[in-house]
Amino acid sequence: MSQSNIAMIGLGVMGKSLALNLLDHGFNVTGFDIDEANRRRAVSEADLVSCIASKGQFVAASNLSELLKTLEKPRVIALSVPAGEIVDKVIDDLLIAGIDSEDIVIDTGNSLWTDSERRETHYQGKLRFFSTAVSGGEVGARTGPALMASGDPAAWEYVRPMWEAIAAKVDEKGLPVGQFEQGESCAAYLGPAGAGHYVKMVHNGIEYADMQLICEAFHFMSDVLEMSAREISAVFSSWTNGVLNSYLIEISAEILQTEDPVTGKPFVDVVLDKAGQKGTGLWTAVNSLQMGAPAPTIAQAVFARAQSAQKQLRVNAAAVLKTHTKPAGGFDKQAMLDELHDALYCAKLVVYAQGFELLKTTSVEEGWNLDFGDIAKIWRAGCIIRAIFLQDITKAYQNEPELEHLLFADVFIEQIAQRSCGWRSSVSNAAIHGVPVPAISSALNYFDSLRCGVLPANLLQAQRDYFGAHTYSRVDKPEDEKFHLTWSEPNKTQLTV
Amino acid sequence: MSQSNIAMIGLGVMGKSLALNLLDHGFNVTGFDIDEANRRRAVSEADLVSCIASKGQFVAASNLSELLKTLEKPRVIALSVPAGEIVDKVIDDLLIAGIDSEDIVIDTGNSLWTDSERRETHYQGKLRFFSTAVSGGEVGARTGPALMASGDPAAWEYVRPMWEAIAAKVDEKGLPVGQFEQGESCAAYLGPAGAGHYVKMVHNGIEYADMQLICEAFHFMSDVLEMSAREISAVFSSWTNGVLNSYLIEISAEILQTEDPVTGKPFVDVVLDKAGQKGTGLWTAVNSLQMGAPAPTIAQAVFARAQSAQKQLRVNAAAVLKTHTKPAGGFDKQAMLDELHDALYCAKLVVYAQGFELLKTTSVEEGWNLDFGDIAKIWRAGCIIRAIFLQDITKAYQNEPELEHLLFADVFIEQIAQRSCGWRSSVSNAAIHGVPVPAISSALNYFDSLRCGVLPANLLQAQRDYFGAHTYSRVDKPEDEKFHLTWSEPNKTQLTV
Repeated sequence: MSQSNIAMIGLGVMGKSLALNLLDHGFNVTGFDIDEANRRRAVSEADLVSCIASKGQFVAASNLSELLKTLEKPRVIALSVPAGEIVDKVIDDLLIAGIDSEDIVIDTGNSLWTDSERRETHYQGKLRFFSTAVSGGEVGARTGPALMASGDPAAWEYVRPMWEAIAAKVDEKGLPVGQFEQGESCAAYLGPAGAGHYVKMVHNGIEYADMQLICEAFHFMSDVLEMSAREISAVFSSWTNGVLNSYLIEISAEILQTEDPVTGKPFVDVVLDKAGQKGTGLWTAVNSLQMGAPAPTIAQAVFARAQSAQKQLRVNAAAVLKTHTKPAGGFDKQAMLDELHDALYCAKLVVYAQGFELLKTTSVEEGWNLDFGDIAKIWRAGCIIRAIFLQDITKAYQNEPELEHLLFADVFIEQIAQRSCGWRSSVSNAAIHGVPVPAISSALNYFDSLRCGVLPANLLQAQRDYFGAHTYSRVDKPEDEKFHLTWSEPNKTQLTV
Repeated sequence: MSQSNIAMIGLGVMGKSLALNLLDHGFNVTGFDIDEANRRRAVSEADLVSCIASKGQFVAASNLSELLKTLEKPRVIALSVPAGEIVDKVIDDLLIAGIDSEDIVIDTGNSLWTDSERRETHYQGKLRFFSTAVSGGEVGARTGPALMASGDPAAWEYVRPMWEAIAAKVDEKGLPVGQFEQGESCAAYLGPAGAGHYVKMVHNGIEYADMQLICEAFHFMSDVLEMSAREISAVFSSWTNGVLNSYLIEISAEILQTEDPVTGKPFVDVVLDKAGQKGTGLWTAVNSLQMGAPAPTIAQAVFARAQSAQKQLRVNAAAVLKTHTKPAGGFDKQAMLDELHDALYCAKLVVYAQGFELLKTTSVEEGWNLDFGDIAKIWRAGCIIRAIFLQDITKAYQNEPELEHLLFADVFIEQIAQRSCGWRSSVSNAAIHGVPVPAISSALNYFDSLRCGVLPANLLQAQRDYFGAHTYSRVDKPEDEKFHLTWSEPNKTQLTV
């Protein structure tokens, strides 16, 4: 029997799906899972694939030494195990079982990027550490995920053919194509080992904000325009024909026309409005604060989930907090829908811009030299945030790799100029009507702050100098010259510090 | 010669000021600083105080053993040294020099609260570890700071007379009185050692947001209402006569009528609009994210500073980003100023509410049993955020210590009902005119989210179940029952998970 091309350790939902995807593309796979049920399930599903000619063969190993014997050299071993200490444990077990310094170990889990950095250093010389963040959930993993690969550059040569084969693909317009069609692959090598998981983390932060923006648009239509779930579904459906075309808008349209199988009510009405989170949005928001690379709209999306989780507090608040809002009615519904469409577009663009700014800041700090065109490219299919306008982002960065800020690309300058009126109206109407739009409005405030050559931080710096002698710089002097005003004296004088 | 009541290690600006304040109130102080210049300066300033009858005596020690000999027992030793490892180093040196388990060591620096928690555990049995966060900057420390004390409860008995004497004081209306006048003291014992620094951290987070709100009001007046710095100063001055009366509004009025001594221009116009930060606002925002206790407006204030720091990017953006905003003019200026006043009040109230919610969440998590009335009380004078409405907060928590949310207090329900119209108008006008108000608007969105018995997180949970099988709870079932819909099937059915 021929050797396997790759091993998959961990045959849960994601590991099994990646393994089947590899078989689909003709690669031989060895699988291992400490859980017997997972292993059996993988074997029976793999058998259904492998029985087809041209597909790869699947072997289940019952321990790591057996697994190593089935692999061609250098051995390529992918891990799909829970993030954290288990990753280190499995790698250490592999070292004991006999992998060597040429062998490649790929962490495909949702690891914290700093853990991947640490592992890259820690396993230097003992093995080739590699990481690949996988986006697209179970369906993506099975039929074509977005793959953000990073780590030992020499390893990429062996991994690349497999990753490019199983990844999602797009046509020349940047639109997703079927699993076995020709197209540009949504897999890319991004840099040292931390890069892949970092880029995925920012992807998830963008995803949090993107979902929140759609929810706010839904809320606006429901509460300001008093539309039913089905009517809102139709609006989202119509929006998939234009610049807002995206997976998340598509599934939102489908969800809003779905009936609860139990009560027959609109499905959304029976779902409890407490959002869960698994942490990557939070990581992104915290990282943005720590890097000083502002992604306030991503943070607002995380806070919105936290507020949603305070259900009982909100129910109590709804009973006591009186507020004056304009009653609905007497407005031009279609005009307000068009404005909302533009608000959603602009806010979404700003979220992506914040995400790419964060990527840029960290890329410089870590010396990764990230290629933003490549990143936009691999997000066009397979992953949750896939959207038609990622094609515009890809082109913007391909045309101008050193683009100072995503919003400075000609295509987006033009879009914003056309659409900002609707954005402003929507934010204004939401405020007057008392419907919360924290993310749409945070994006507008980010944009308006960015456009300000002079922000009121001059008053803020003066306050800090007043109460804490924190000093200030002057607009007419080099920034590193610091001054302090003698605030307590009647004739205030300026001291050079 | 009589023994000293307390030692101060570190005679920089803060340590020296606290020492002089202690002398002022008749306590004998031993001072020590490894920096000879700091020590000499402290001695000469202390001599000017000590020569007055009824004042305390100052002794400068030249090493720690000498310092210990001058102190009555149990020894009370305050540290005013840079936060971080130096604190541990000095305490270890004190142990070598011979302090014992009854002696009290007080960290008065800006330590991270988790460091204080760690030290409390680490020094258990070796000394009585105590911490006191000091707010009010140099002037506060010298003439009356707000003191947030925590740590070994047995130590408080010895520290209390000194802290209550030197802290800021308020009259029965909650307004600050002079250094030597009678009044209620702004010093309180809050709980275990982490509590004081934690409360101070949240105080600083509130301070960041409070400053940002004022800056946004300034920006609105300047750019929407086209008012000069002097006119804006007059508005802030008039606002000190009402519910907005606060130290930060006062100094803003003074700053805006100040001329640059060099050019004669309005002072704010020559100050570079890049805000600095020392980290406590950032800590608060990160902690709020991590605790799931939403303080989005504090986070927005931190992001606003980060955006201000991107000066060159903003100048470039101002040149290329076209946007359609309504031209100013044709409005009722006084009406818009009144609205802005109410916007500032409501947003500020929401910031405090977010801060107190964060305190409550952490208090429960850490088992601190914080007294929110006490906390509001000691912020009424001495510290940067002192404001007349802290008296209302104090009363609200004294009337109802278990108040579920600050905004549920009768006094604030009424204020919001009166003032929310102006808040909504201001946010709406800012959006239309293109003037950023990230914090004022984030506060409104927090408020409107809080008032929502149902948030669109139901759609968000449905999205998460759709693409990631993350499951959902139902409004008509217990929350811990989780379900999944078979989205890919034509006849979707509900599975119990």
